[in-house]
Amino acid sequence: MGKKINLLVFSGDYDKLYAALLIANGARDMEMEVSMFFAFWGLLIMRDPEKAVGEGKSTYEKMFGAVTPKGPEDLGLSRMNMMGMGKSMMLDMMKDDNAPSLQKLLDGARKNKVKFYGCKLSAEVMGFKKEEMLPELEVVDVKAYIGDAVNSDMQLFI
Amino acid sequence: MGKKINLLVFSGDYDKLYAALLIANGARDMEMEVSMFFAFWGLLIMRDPEKAVGEGKSTYEKMFGAVTPKGPEDLGLSRMNMMGMGKSMMLDMMKDDNAPSLQKLLDGARKNKVKFYGCKLSAEVMGFKKEEMLPELEVVDVKAYIGDAVNSDMQLFI
Amino acid sequence: MGKKINLLVFSGDYDKLYAALLIANGARDMEMEVSMFFAFWGLLIMRDPEKAVGEGKSTYEKMFGAVTPKGPEDLGLSRMNMMGMGKSMMLDMMKDDNAPSLQKLLDGARKNKVKFYGCKLSAEVMGFKKEEMLPELEVVDVKAYIGDAVNSDMQLFI
Repeated sequence: MGKKINLLVFSGDYDKLYAALLIANGARDMEMEVSMFFAFWGLLIMRDPEKAVGEGKSTYEKMFGAVTPKGPEDLGLSRMNMMGMGKSMMLDMMKDDNAPSLQKLLDGARKNKVKFYGCKLSAEVMGFKKEEMLPELEVVDVKAYIGDAVNSDMQLFI
Repeated sequence: MGKKINLLVFSGDYDKLYAALLIANGARDMEMEVSMFFAFWGLLIMRDPEKAVGEGKSTYEKMFGAVTPKGPEDLGLSRMNMMGMGKSMMLDMMKDDNAPSLQKLLDGARKNKVKFYGCKLSAEVMGFKKEEMLPELEVVDVKAYIGDAVNSDMQLFI
Repeated sequence: MGKKINLLVFSGDYDKLYAALLIANGARDMEMEVSMFFAFWGLLIMRDPEKAVGEGKSTYEKMFGAVTPKGPEDLGLSRMNMMGMGKSMMLDMMKDDNAPSLQKLLDGARKNKVKFYGCKLSAEVMGFKKEEMLPELEVVDVKAYIGDAVNSDMQLFI
């Protein structure tokens, strides 16, 4: 009956995640079911900026956790980022048009019951612990993703 | 009966747009329906190189319009662009094999009745006015995209 | 009856190809049919590192063949590659978690009968000859891709 959308979010770019969350929120408004599966760089937006964890990590995992963006507003643009200058210009242009921030879109998706899945293998390799991620994130393996995706009416790799 | 293809074109890279338009033209030749929805950087290829508009734009929107590519042949490669050197080498290699230019593919898609939609929010944020875009471009919101995409037989995010 | 997955692999990044091959192998384990269509930079992973060919190529095609990665382990990350430093750190982190290398995933996909298609136009433009590619690669045109994709249960552009 109802339509179902599946988004594989691989990217950690502000603008691509913006597109992903616009689609997710729009589809929920249209009463579709929406699953987002965050893998590789996409997991960066699932980090809770207040909750970095150091214990139980290897040296590389600690370094990696420290140098990568924490949460939505810390991400850069996929192009014209120019060390953040292009991004802050883009944010000003968004404000002029009353476009919501990425943080707002993410808050909306959490409230609107978009389902958040995280890629188990990526989380292990990057050393991300459950406690430093958003509580809604459910970590699953690639077969769970495939099963969900192939039974959806639409799939995107973002 | 007939199949329907929906392409979300987010990228503003010459090579990715080349792939998108090859698919669009191929599918039209096979008598499928094709919608392309241009969002964010994808809108750059929908600009008419002859018709830059300055009036009614904020300072940032003017700057943004001036520094970003205008129309298909102004776009760079997604990798090995090397300030345009890699791209001009690629263009020479394409000519050697009689591969059409991006401009030709775009002209073909316009003639072949591929449907061109533009993302309303992106156009507003970037300050692109209707008069500086190709006349075939119809500006719609994200829900119009989702409705079209979810009722297609195939969707790609490019 | 059985489900069918179609992946258009446009990217030549280690991490994106890793994701593509994880999905391909996972879907084969779940007894789905899987087609991968390698276009543009995606063709780089289909090169046999032992079999570079020079004859019958234009000067540009020779240069291009020499400066681009040959085979899976030669590819870089889509971000944080940092001249290979970021990549080797990532490879160490993968080893710590017993994650397979890209080469292993590719070997698995070949053994698991994933179908490998290569884009004819891309191969011609880049000057890649049949003899320097993996023997499983079947070179086809864009319409063969579209026909396969539109009749699949799921399509991704990676």
